[in-house]
Amino acid sequence: MTDFTATRRAFHLPAGITYLDGNSLGPMPVAARDRVAAMMADEWSEMLITGWNKAGWYVQPRRVGDRIARLIGVGPGEVVMGDTLSIKVFQAVSAALALRPGRRVILSDNGNFPSDLYVAEGLARAVGAELRVVAPEEVGAAITPDLAVLMLTEVDYRTGRRHDMAALTALAHRAGALTVWDLAHSAGAVDVDLAGADADFAVGCTYKYLNGGPGAPAFIWTHPRHAEAAQPILQGWMGHEAPFAFDLGYRPAGGVERMRVGTPPVIALTALDAALDVWDDVELADLRARSIALTEAFIKGVEAACPDVTLNSPRDPQRRGSQVSFRHPQGYAVMQALIAEGVIGDFRAPDVLRFGFAPLYNDLDDVGRAVETLARVLRDGLWNDEKFHDKAAVT
Amino acid sequence: MTDFTATRRAFHLPAGITYLDGNSLGPMPVAARDRVAAMMADEWSEMLITGWNKAGWYVQPRRVGDRIARLIGVGPGEVVMGDTLSIKVFQAVSAALALRPGRRVILSDNGNFPSDLYVAEGLARAVGAELRVVAPEEVGAAITPDLAVLMLTEVDYRTGRRHDMAALTALAHRAGALTVWDLAHSAGAVDVDLAGADADFAVGCTYKYLNGGPGAPAFIWTHPRHAEAAQPILQGWMGHEAPFAFDLGYRPAGGVERMRVGTPPVIALTALDAALDVWDDVELADLRARSIALTEAFIKGVEAACPDVTLNSPRDPQRRGSQVSFRHPQGYAVMQALIAEGVIGDFRAPDVLRFGFAPLYNDLDDVGRAVETLARVLRDGLWNDEKFHDKAAVT
Repeated sequence: MTDFTATRRAFHLPAGITYLDGNSLGPMPVAARDRVAAMMADEWSEMLITGWNKAGWYVQPRRVGDRIARLIGVGPGEVVMGDTLSIKVFQAVSAALALRPGRRVILSDNGNFPSDLYVAEGLARAVGAELRVVAPEEVGAAITPDLAVLMLTEVDYRTGRRHDMAALTALAHRAGALTVWDLAHSAGAVDVDLAGADADFAVGCTYKYLNGGPGAPAFIWTHPRHAEAAQPILQGWMGHEAPFAFDLGYRPAGGVERMRVGTPPVIALTALDAALDVWDDVELADLRARSIALTEAFIKGVEAACPDVTLNSPRDPQRRGSQVSFRHPQGYAVMQALIAEGVIGDFRAPDVLRFGFAPLYNDLDDVGRAVETLARVLRDGLWNDEKFHDKAAVT
Repeated sequence: MTDFTATRRAFHLPAGITYLDGNSLGPMPVAARDRVAAMMADEWSEMLITGWNKAGWYVQPRRVGDRIARLIGVGPGEVVMGDTLSIKVFQAVSAALALRPGRRVILSDNGNFPSDLYVAEGLARAVGAELRVVAPEEVGAAITPDLAVLMLTEVDYRTGRRHDMAALTALAHRAGALTVWDLAHSAGAVDVDLAGADADFAVGCTYKYLNGGPGAPAFIWTHPRHAEAAQPILQGWMGHEAPFAFDLGYRPAGGVERMRVGTPPVIALTALDAALDVWDDVELADLRARSIALTEAFIKGVEAACPDVTLNSPRDPQRRGSQVSFRHPQGYAVMQALIAEGVIGDFRAPDVLRFGFAPLYNDLDDVGRAVETLARVLRDGLWNDEKFHDKAAVT
C-alpha cells in the first residue's frame, strides 16, 4: 500500500492554504531546493565542463525519462526529456505524419489544450497538411480512412473528461492512422497505460502532477515499433547519432534519443529528478483509487452544499481524470473570492471553476475545507465584491 | 572603465584550475546559487501558481531578454528568451523563409555549428526548401539572387573566425535575402552590433560567455521591421496574442513575443538573470579590448614556446572572436594531458585544441599559466601516455 501521509510530507505546502491547483503547477518537493543547490555547488561550480560526463548531464534526459516511463506504462529507454510540451507535440505529430506518407489529415478535438492545436496548425500550414477539429464526443466517428494522425489530450484541461485511449487508438489503427497522446493532465494523475492501449507516440509536461517546477521540461515517448523509423522535423545535435563527431549531415540517434533537440536544461532536470523521488514508492493503482475517492467526495460535497454551481465534469469516475470542474455564471469572481479565502483552484473562461486533486499531497481534509469554503463564498455572496471582478488585476 | 577585477570576483572558479572553456560552459556566478534557492523558497514554494503574476514569471522571458539586448546592440522589447538555440534557429529561419515567398534557398557555411545545419536540413526537407552549404570564405560569392535566407554563425566554433556581419548582411539584402545570425560564440564575447549591421534575425545561447548554467535558455531577436510580419512555424500558446483566452485558433502576439512557444523555464531563467547582473557595469568596448589583449598574448606566447602546434585562428584580431585554436596531430591526447595539468580547454575533431578567453574572469595570469603548461606538456611529451589516448574514457 502506498503511504500517502509520507508523500504529502515530502512537499512544502504553505500554511493556511488549501491547494487544489496542482494540475496547473505542482508544489515544491522539499528535497528539490537542496538538490538544485547541491548540483550548482558540486557539479556546475566544481566540475565545470566535465560535469557533462562526470555528473551524467548528457544522459540525464534519458535517465529521468526512465523514471517517468513507469508512471505512463512503458519500458525503460523509451522516454526522453527536454524542451516544452508544445515542442514535443510538434516533434511527435511531425514524426507520425512522416510515417503515413500520402495521408495529410491530423484530427483533434476542441477540448484539446489550445497550444496543441496551435502547434498542429503551424505544422499543417508548413507541410501542407490539414488539421480537423471536432467535438470530443465526435472523435470516434471522425476517424476516417484518410486520417494520418489522431492527436488528443487524454484528460480535458477544463472538464477533466478522460478519453478512452485504448478504444480510440484501436479505431485509429483500424483506419491506418497513428496516435499522439498528450498526457499533460494524466501523468501522475491517473493510471496511464500507453503500452496496454497500444499507442504510438505520447508527450507530456512535468510541472503539473509531477511537480517539477514552473516551466519544467517535457517528455516524449515513442513506441519501440516506430523508434527507429521516426523522423521528426526538429533535428538537433543532441538527437544525432554522434553529436561530438560534428558531422555536417544529420544521422538520427537510435531509438527515442533522436527526439532530443538541443542542449538539455540541467538545472531544471535536477529539480524534476528530485521531484520524481517522491514517486518511488507509489503504486499507480493506489494513486488512481485515491484520486477517485477525492474527486467523488468533492463532487458529492459541492452538490450537497452549493446549489448555484453545475458539474462540468463526467459523473462517472472512470471517464474522469483527477480534476473536477463546476460552472457558475460569475465563475471568475467566485474563484477570486475563494482564493482570497485560502482555497486555490483556478478559473478557465468563460465560467469554469477548476479544482485539481493530486493524490500525492491532497487529502480528504482538503476536500472538506474546499467544500465548506466554496459553500460559504456562494451562500454569503463573498464573490459579489468589486475587487473580485477586475480581470485586469489578475490573469 | 570596466572593473574586470570585480567581474572576476563574481564567479566561482575552482582552486588550481585555469579555465579556458567558458566558450563551452561558463562558470557559476556566485550569486546564481542563492538566487535560485530564493526563487524556489520564496516564489515556487510560497506563491505556487500565483507566482506567474506576483513574481513576474510570465514576463521573465521578455525582461531577461531586455538585459541581453544591450549586449547584442539592439533595443529593449526586441529580444525574448526560451527553448534551446536549435529551436530558436528553426524559429528564425522558418520565419525568414516565410517572408521571402517564392524563394527557397537557405545558404550557410561548413564552419557553422552542425546543429544549425541539421535544423535547417530538417526544415528544408519539411517545407521543400534547399540548404546550400559552402566554405566560410565562399559565402560572399555564393549570395545569389535566388537566396531566401543567409544563415550564419558569426564566430566559428572551432577556429574563432569572425564573419563580417555588416558586409555579408548588406550583400544578402542587395540580393533580396534576409539574414539569421547565430551569436552563440559572440554574445558576451565580442562587441555585437546587430542594429548597426542591419541584420534581420539573431539567435544565441546563454551558457557560454553569458554564464547562465548548463543548458540555459536561448534568446531570439527579430528586427522591428519584421516583428509584426514574422510567422514562425512553431506557434505555441505563449506566443499567442491572448494565451489565457484559450482560443482554438492561433493569433500571434505583437512583436518578438510571438517567437515564444511553451511555458518558460523559470528556474533556469532565474539562474541566468543572476548571471546577467555581472554585466551591468561592463562596457562592450572594454570587453572587446580585453578579449583582444588576452588572445593576442596567448597566440604570441604559444607560438614562441610551442613549435609543434599550428595556429588555427585568424591572426588579425579584427577577424577573430574571443577564442583561439591550434592544431596538433595528437590534439586529443595533448588536450587530455593539459586538462590533467589543470588547464581546461577542449578538443574538437580532428586535431583542434580550442581555448576560450572570457574577459569577465580570464586574465593575463591565466594566459601565462596556459602557455607555460602547454609548452611543458609538449616539450616533456606528457601527452604520450596511454591513458590520454582512450577516447572512450572521455567525450
